[in-house]
Amino acid sequence: MLSTMQDVPLTVTRILVHGALVHGDAKVTTWTGDGEPHRRTFREVGDRSSQLAHALRDELGVTADERVATLMWNNSDHLEAYLAIPAMGAILHTLNLRLPPEQLVWIVRHAADRVVIVNGTLLPLLAPLLPHLDSVEHVVVSGPGDRSVLEGCRPRVHDYDELIAGRPTEGYDWPELDERQAAALCYTSGTTGEPKGVLYSHRSIYLHAMEVNAAASFGLTPAEICLPVVPMFHVNAWGLPYAAFMAGTSLLMPDRFLQPAPLAAMIQSERPTVTAGVPTIWQGLLAELDTNKQDVSSLHTVISGGSACPPALMKAFEERHGLRLIQAWGMTETSPLGSVARPPAGLSEDEAWPYRVTQGRLPASVEFRLAGPGGGYLPWDGTSAGELEVRGPWIAGSYYGGAADEPFRPDDKFSPDGWLRTGDVGTMTPDGFLTLTDRAKDVIKSGGEWISSVELENHLMAHPEVAEAAVVAVPDDKWGERPLAAVVLKDGSVVEYAALRSFLGERVARWQLPERWVLIPSVPKTSVGKFDKKVLRKQYAEGELDVTVLA
Amino acid sequence: MLSTMQDVPLTVTRILVHGALVHGDAKVTTWTGDGEPHRRTFREVGDRSSQLAHALRDELGVTADERVATLMWNNSDHLEAYLAIPAMGAILHTLNLRLPPEQLVWIVRHAADRVVIVNGTLLPLLAPLLPHLDSVEHVVVSGPGDRSVLEGCRPRVHDYDELIAGRPTEGYDWPELDERQAAALCYTSGTTGEPKGVLYSHRSIYLHAMEVNAAASFGLTPAEICLPVVPMFHVNAWGLPYAAFMAGTSLLMPDRFLQPAPLAAMIQSERPTVTAGVPTIWQGLLAELDTNKQDVSSLHTVISGGSACPPALMKAFEERHGLRLIQAWGMTETSPLGSVARPPAGLSEDEAWPYRVTQGRLPASVEFRLAGPGGGYLPWDGTSAGELEVRGPWIAGSYYGGAADEPFRPDDKFSPDGWLRTGDVGTMTPDGFLTLTDRAKDVIKSGGEWISSVELENHLMAHPEVAEAAVVAVPDDKWGERPLAAVVLKDGSVVEYAALRSFLGERVARWQLPERWVLIPSVPKTSVGKFDKKVLRKQYAEGELDVTVLA
Repeated sequence: MLSTMQDVPLTVTRILVHGALVHGDAKVTTWTGDGEPHRRTFREVGDRSSQLAHALRDELGVTADERVATLMWNNSDHLEAYLAIPAMGAILHTLNLRLPPEQLVWIVRHAADRVVIVNGTLLPLLAPLLPHLDSVEHVVVSGPGDRSVLEGCRPRVHDYDELIAGRPTEGYDWPELDERQAAALCYTSGTTGEPKGVLYSHRSIYLHAMEVNAAASFGLTPAEICLPVVPMFHVNAWGLPYAAFMAGTSLLMPDRFLQPAPLAAMIQSERPTVTAGVPTIWQGLLAELDTNKQDVSSLHTVISGGSACPPALMKAFEERHGLRLIQAWGMTETSPLGSVARPPAGLSEDEAWPYRVTQGRLPASVEFRLAGPGGGYLPWDGTSAGELEVRGPWIAGSYYGGAADEPFRPDDKFSPDGWLRTGDVGTMTPDGFLTLTDRAKDVIKSGGEWISSVELENHLMAHPEVAEAAVVAVPDDKWGERPLAAVVLKDGSVVEYAALRSFLGERVARWQLPERWVLIPSVPKTSVGKFDKKVLRKQYAEGELDVTVLA
Repeated sequence: MLSTMQDVPLTVTRILVHGALVHGDAKVTTWTGDGEPHRRTFREVGDRSSQLAHALRDELGVTADERVATLMWNNSDHLEAYLAIPAMGAILHTLNLRLPPEQLVWIVRHAADRVVIVNGTLLPLLAPLLPHLDSVEHVVVSGPGDRSVLEGCRPRVHDYDELIAGRPTEGYDWPELDERQAAALCYTSGTTGEPKGVLYSHRSIYLHAMEVNAAASFGLTPAEICLPVVPMFHVNAWGLPYAAFMAGTSLLMPDRFLQPAPLAAMIQSERPTVTAGVPTIWQGLLAELDTNKQDVSSLHTVISGGSACPPALMKAFEERHGLRLIQAWGMTETSPLGSVARPPAGLSEDEAWPYRVTQGRLPASVEFRLAGPGGGYLPWDGTSAGELEVRGPWIAGSYYGGAADEPFRPDDKFSPDGWLRTGDVGTMTPDGFLTLTDRAKDVIKSGGEWISSVELENHLMAHPEVAEAAVVAVPDDKWGERPLAAVVLKDGSVVEYAALRSFLGERVARWQLPERWVLIPSVPKTSVGKFDKKVLRKQYAEGELDVTVLA
C-alpha cells in the first residue's frame, strides 16, 4: 500500500529557493587577497542565479540535460553556477584545474561541454586548450584576469556580469524535476585508465546536504560560518556549498588564495567556525601558525579528508593552536561523505584517540561491507581486512558514458549486486568505525590471506638505517603472491637483509615476512609523489632487480 | 538524463539495521516509577525487533500492508513495534489512549486492525472495547498489568515476551521496500467530523528523522540522551524514536509516569540532554521544580510544541531553572516537524526574544504559503495574515481511506494543487518565521479582510473587569461577517459595552471593533476545556442571545 504523503522531489531548486528566501541575509564572502573581501547575500546569489539561468537559456541556448562546465575557484559566482545550472535542469560540470592539460581536454570532449564558465585568473590555463575543445562554443569569464589571451579564439567570449546584467532576478520558471535527474558531473582523476564521470542526482545532492548538516556530521546552522578550503572542483567541495545554502550558513570563499599565509589571514579576519580541507592544507597552515601566530580561535570544527591525516599533525594542531582536526572519509564516487571520525560518547581524551585516527563512523544512509580475499564478506571485528564496498543513495552505481553513450559499470568498480568497490582495503570495528590499511591493488594476496604492503613499509621505514621502503606483490607458485621488499638505505648505511627481516619479525606475524629482498637507489614515484608500484612490479617481472631470497 | 547514482530506498529498515549494528551499545531506558529503570541496548532492541517480526508473521500471520495496532506508553517494547512492523512491510498503527472509547472503536474498525499490542497497564481501557472490535483476533500484552480482565474475551491473548521468546534474533529476511510504501498510520483527533488517518511512508519517516537530527533542529547525536515526553501515540512522538535510533542517541522512555514529580525524578536521575513535550507538561514540571528543587541541569534543549507556549512559562523556566524552551510547530499531517523557533544568529537576548515566541522558522524541505481572504497568496511581511498551507515530502497529501477504500482528499483540507490546508491563520516574516494568530474557522472574514478572534479576546480579557471573553463571527449583510463579543464579567463587576469598546479601540484598528455585544454567564467549553465557539454561533443564530448593537 502506498502512503498518502505528498510526492515532493528533493532538488537543488529547493535548496536555491529556500536559501535565497528564508536565509536571504546570510553572506557569501569571497577573499580577494590584499583587497577588501567581496560580499554578497544569499538573496543576491539567488537573484543572480535566476539571471544566470535566463542568460544560459535565452542567450546561449542551454537546454535540459546539457553539461555546462566551470573552471573556477571557490567564489560566489561559482556558487551561482552550482545553484542555477542544476535548477534549470542542466548539468553542472566542474573541471579540476589541477589536472594535466591533456586530461582536461579529454574530459571536456567526453562531456561535450558547449559552455565553459571560467575565472579570469584561470584564462592562461584555458586559452591554450581551446583549439582542442571542439564542442565549446561559449566562454563566460568571471572576475578579474587578463582577457587578452582569448583574442582571436574560436568560441564567443562573454563577461559573466555583463551577460547576466538586466535579466530578471525572479520569475525564472524553474522546471519541475525528477529527483533522480542528473544535476552535477565530476570526473575522477584515477591513477590508471581514463577519467570516469560521476553523475550526481538532485536526490543525492539533497540527501548528502542533509547529512552534512546533521549534528553528528558537520552540523551547519545559521549560526556557523563555513570556510570550504577543499575546492569546488573536487567532489562539489565535499557538498559544503549546497549544505550551507540549505542551512543558511554563511560561506567564506578563499578563491585562489589557498596558500597558508592568506588562509591564516582570512580566518583571523572573517572568523569562520567550520572548515574542511585535505591534510596538506592543514600541514601548511600549521607551519604558518607556528611561525606567525594568528587568531584562529573562531574555528571549532576542522574537517580533514582526502587522504589519511597524520596523527602527529592532529596532535600538533591541538597542542599548539587549540584546534581539533576531525577526520572524514569519502571519494568522488561517494559524494563524498562516507564516514566521520567522531568518537563514541563518554570517552576520555585517551580513550577517544584510537577512534579519532580512524577514517570514521558511517551514517545511517551509508552501508559498508568488507569483501575478503576468499570471496565472502568479513566480520566487523577490528582486525579482518577486506576491500571496502559501499552502498547508499548518494553512492555512484555506474559512470557517465559521455554525451552519446550509455552509462558503464566496470566489474572492478562495482560488484554484481551494485555496491561500489572502493579499491581501499581496511577493517571495521563492531561499532562501525573504518580504518583503511592499503589500496586493494597494492595488497599482497598470499594463500587466501591479505598482507598489507603499507603496514610492512611503515615498519621498515621505522628502522634507523632505512630511508625508504616499498613492498609489492610478486607471483609465487605456492602462495599465489608473496611480498617483495625493496629498500633504500640511508646514505652510508649498511645492513643485512636478515637483520631487517628480524626487525620486521618483531612487529608483524611470521607468515607476513617477505622472503624476497632488494636494495634500490630510490623508490619510483608518480607525478604527485606517490610510490609507483607498477614500475617496481614491472622491473621485477622483467628480471631487472637483483633480488635476494632468504631461506 | 537520469543520474548514475545507486537507487537505494529510504526505509525504516535501514534505521533499524543501522542503529542496532553501529550504535548497538546505545541504551533505551524505560522508567518504572519507584523500581529500578528497565534497560535495553539498541542491539537488544534490534534482536527483539527481529523476533517480533518473526512472531507476527510466523505465529499471527501478519502480511504486508496489514495494520498492526499499538495501545502503549513510551517504552522499549513500543520502540520494537515501531521498528519491526514497518520493516517487515506492515503498517504500525498507534492508538491514542486519550481518545473517547467510541472514537477508539471507530478507528480500530476503520483500520481493520487484526492484532493489537497493548501495555498491561492499559488493559482496563482496552478490555471493555474488545466486544466492539470485530477485526481484532490477537491481543499481545506487554509489561506489567493485571491480565485477568481479558478472561473470556474473544481474541487470542499472548504475552509479548513469551510470544517472541526463542525466535531468531537475526536472519529476519526484511523485504526490499519501495520508499513510498506506507509505514505508519496515525489518526487525527479533530474536533469536528470523523477521525482522519495520516499514512506516513518509509520515505517521509526517514527524511523527517534526518531533519530532526539536523543541528538547526533538535541535533540528536550519540552524545545526547533524548527524553520523549510527547507520547508515541501522538504523531510518532514527533519522530524522536526514529531519529534517535538513526543517530545512535540513547532514549529515556517515561512509560506511564508523565506526572511532574516522576518526570523531575527521572531527569535528575538519568540526566537526559534533549526533551520534547506540550506546554502543559512544562507548566506542570515548572510548578514541581518551584516547590521541589531538583537537578535538571543535564537538559540543554527543551522542545515545546502541540500548542503555543505561553511566553511567561518560557521566562519562568529560564529565570528560575536555567532551562531554555524552544518552540516548534507541526501537526499530525506534517509528521510533525514544520518549523523550529531558533532565532537568527548574532542577536542579543532581547533581540532574539520576538523570534523565540514565534512558531518557528521553516527548514528547506518544508514550504509555507499564506492563503489570503481574497483567494491569492499573501506577502511575507510579518503582518499579512492568511491561512497557512504547507508542502513537502513529509506532509500529508490525502487521508487513509480505510481498509477497503481509496484515499480521500477533502477540499477543506487540501488545495487543488495538493498543498495541505492547516486551518491555522498566521503571518510570516520575510526571513521565514511563522506566527499563528487564529484558527481559520474562528477568524472573522469582514469585507475581504480577516479579523483575529483570538486577538480581540486576548485584549478584552486584559480588561480589569472581564473574567472571560469569546469573539465569534456572525453573518452581516454589508461585510459578510462581523465580530460578536461575548463577555463574562468578574463577580460583582459592572461595565458598559461602550467602555469595553473604547478599551479595545486603543488596541486594535477601528474597523475591527465589534458592534455586537452580549454578556454571558460563562463561555461554553469543549471536553478538553477549549472555547466551544460552535455553541455560541448556534445560540446567536437561534436568537438565544440578548445582543446589544452599538451605533
